[in-house]
Amino acid sequence: MNANPVFNMHIPTKLLFGCGEIKRLATEKLPGRRAMIIVSAGGSMRRHGYLDKVIRLLTENDVSTIVYDKILPNPIKAHVMEAACICRERGCDFIVGLGGGSTIDSAKAIAVMARQEGDFWDYVIGGSGKGRLVKEALPVVAIPTTAGTGTEVDPWAVITNEERQEKIGFGSDKTYPALSIVDPELMLSIPPQLTAYQGFDAFFHAAEGFIANCATPVSDLFALEAIRLLYKYLPVAVNDGRNLKARAKVAWASTLAGMVESTSSCTSEHSLEHAMSACYPQLPHGAGLIAVSEAYFETFRNDCMKRYMKMAEVMTQQKSNRPSDFIDALVRMKKSCGVDDIRLSQWGLKAEDLPQLVQNARDTMGGLFTLDPRPLTDEEVLAIYQASFR
Amino acid sequence: MNANPVFNMHIPTKLLFGCGEIKRLATEKLPGRRAMIIVSAGGSMRRHGYLDKVIRLLTENDVSTIVYDKILPNPIKAHVMEAACICRERGCDFIVGLGGGSTIDSAKAIAVMARQEGDFWDYVIGGSGKGRLVKEALPVVAIPTTAGTGTEVDPWAVITNEERQEKIGFGSDKTYPALSIVDPELMLSIPPQLTAYQGFDAFFHAAEGFIANCATPVSDLFALEAIRLLYKYLPVAVNDGRNLKARAKVAWASTLAGMVESTSSCTSEHSLEHAMSACYPQLPHGAGLIAVSEAYFETFRNDCMKRYMKMAEVMTQQKSNRPSDFIDALVRMKKSCGVDDIRLSQWGLKAEDLPQLVQNARDTMGGLFTLDPRPLTDEEVLAIYQASFR
Repeated sequence: MNANPVFNMHIPTKLLFGCGEIKRLATEKLPGRRAMIIVSAGGSMRRHGYLDKVIRLLTENDVSTIVYDKILPNPIKAHVMEAACICRERGCDFIVGLGGGSTIDSAKAIAVMARQEGDFWDYVIGGSGKGRLVKEALPVVAIPTTAGTGTEVDPWAVITNEERQEKIGFGSDKTYPALSIVDPELMLSIPPQLTAYQGFDAFFHAAEGFIANCATPVSDLFALEAIRLLYKYLPVAVNDGRNLKARAKVAWASTLAGMVESTSSCTSEHSLEHAMSACYPQLPHGAGLIAVSEAYFETFRNDCMKRYMKMAEVMTQQKSNRPSDFIDALVRMKKSCGVDDIRLSQWGLKAEDLPQLVQNARDTMGGLFTLDPRPLTDEEVLAIYQASFR
Repeated sequence: MNANPVFNMHIPTKLLFGCGEIKRLATEKLPGRRAMIIVSAGGSMRRHGYLDKVIRLLTENDVSTIVYDKILPNPIKAHVMEAACICRERGCDFIVGLGGGSTIDSAKAIAVMARQEGDFWDYVIGGSGKGRLVKEALPVVAIPTTAGTGTEVDPWAVITNEERQEKIGFGSDKTYPALSIVDPELMLSIPPQLTAYQGFDAFFHAAEGFIANCATPVSDLFALEAIRLLYKYLPVAVNDGRNLKARAKVAWASTLAGMVESTSSCTSEHSLEHAMSACYPQLPHGAGLIAVSEAYFETFRNDCMKRYMKMAEVMTQQKSNRPSDFIDALVRMKKSCGVDDIRLSQWGLKAEDLPQLVQNARDTMGGLFTLDPRPLTDEEVLAIYQASFR
């Protein structure tokens, strides 16, 4: 916090948090009577019985439902447009996003396109997006079943334009969920590796938001608590997925990190990752972030030393005198979560592709580079990719 | 935070914070075109030029204004009803509360009664209030010029029923301000003693909210940061009122403590104080709280020991092993703010009145007693009053 900061805070979402809170779907005042439920194409929401449960609870609350179930792990624009079209035809008056970030982000984008003309990319800001103003959107109810994106309390929807290999985060004050229910019991079945990938996504939302040059006193508060909780509990949740206490702490940390997204911002680490997973859609977002993180944070080590030491202190609960204490703690955390040896080549990345990623990162989410602690050169960005590539 | 807490968070207010931010009134999207501005009867908003400034900025934003300027330090129902009537007659579509808690709280109550039938006490919950449901309210813009109440980010409006000597906090999801602008530059002229009274009000919102049995992980975050900032900066702001950095820190702490109000709750310390200032309207709210605080917190010293030690730690920045470290720090803070010798008798309180205050505290804001760390007996409440009386 500089001496006299100017900042704002506006998170209009109503958040319900806690084990078993999914049941509130049957009794809460909902923003409509006819819902389109968005789930992923993978079928896990059906397998775990979550979809049936949500339909049943909504029915108890006098809400009729239809289901759109084609969303991919890196969600694409074509599905947003198709679902929005169905939504209009069927007269849905709100959207329920049930699942991971891909489905909730899609729910937001569908909510926008159900009430807007033209193509989703007409409204996206960045890349080849035309940046038109979103006038209104259907209300969204977010029910995350993973702990990582924080999308339940932020306005962001990350969608890939599959024709242009652009993966861009889009949002406005119209795309905050109206209601979010974070129920850690829905997260017990996430396998260890995914738990780690998602948890590190949350960790980087907090860490990037803490070093961003637009950090505020309120984002700092959320960020440090998320960092503290994730360092302590993410390894527990990864190594013992049935540990409900650890799941709840990680879920809350992820939601806190989402509030960091709403009050500060990601930095260019996310641009670097989006460029990779736009070109290699099989690469999990969290894995890409973990892969570049050490080189990324090393690059800014001397640019915000006090903030690195502060992060190290909440992680280790010990006094820190060196910014590299943060990097050391990050490396230890990766090890204890079993993700210290990520090989980008396993998802098809090649060393010779790295230079073109630099341009993609600048083109599609270039804005985040302006929020870094200091401006990065293209050579530095390439060096981060190269140091991270195995 | 117990192992698996269930909680919620919903603060729909858009908050703009920072020195000079009052200017945003001229450019922000406002919730109407015709505002009723509420100020106190004391005339300080005119003397300091704040009222003229607000009218000018609203005019720049194409908003026409009328002014209601009768609000008392302990605001009364008669003024709420009168202003709401004028508001309807003149077709105002939003209310601006400019000043201390009394005017912003009045603005909320007026916003309710401009859209409701009957009497304000028909809607108040507690005392002789009838608890009817508030269906809608005009939007409120809050511009605090004091740092203490936190009313800019909570739904509460504390109004006195002057016919019944009931002073009750009322609020619903309809009474959050739509927009709040917290500009520490508007607080530079608050005299030292008022600065202390108001700052301690914020401190107790945070400390009570931290020991309340309904505290949540999110309210804890806000509360501890408010407690830390107030311990460090309130004495600076009291002793050097022109210190803008200290004013800004205290203002932010007060807003954080308001968010505690919205996510946890005050405890019965506030009921004890409301009973006193309902009967002795000259007694400043903060002075009443300061007077009872030592005996009040002493009463619960062994009921939430860890929480007392945690508060002591953020205050002193040293490890604490005894709950009484918190009380010691509180006493030191009072001394350094020059409010360690408050004599309730100076506002007309008499020792023989104390027993009837116990009943008043139970009758009017009795609900807060259920949120204490443990239930207090009437004998204990009386003992707190007696120990605090000089």
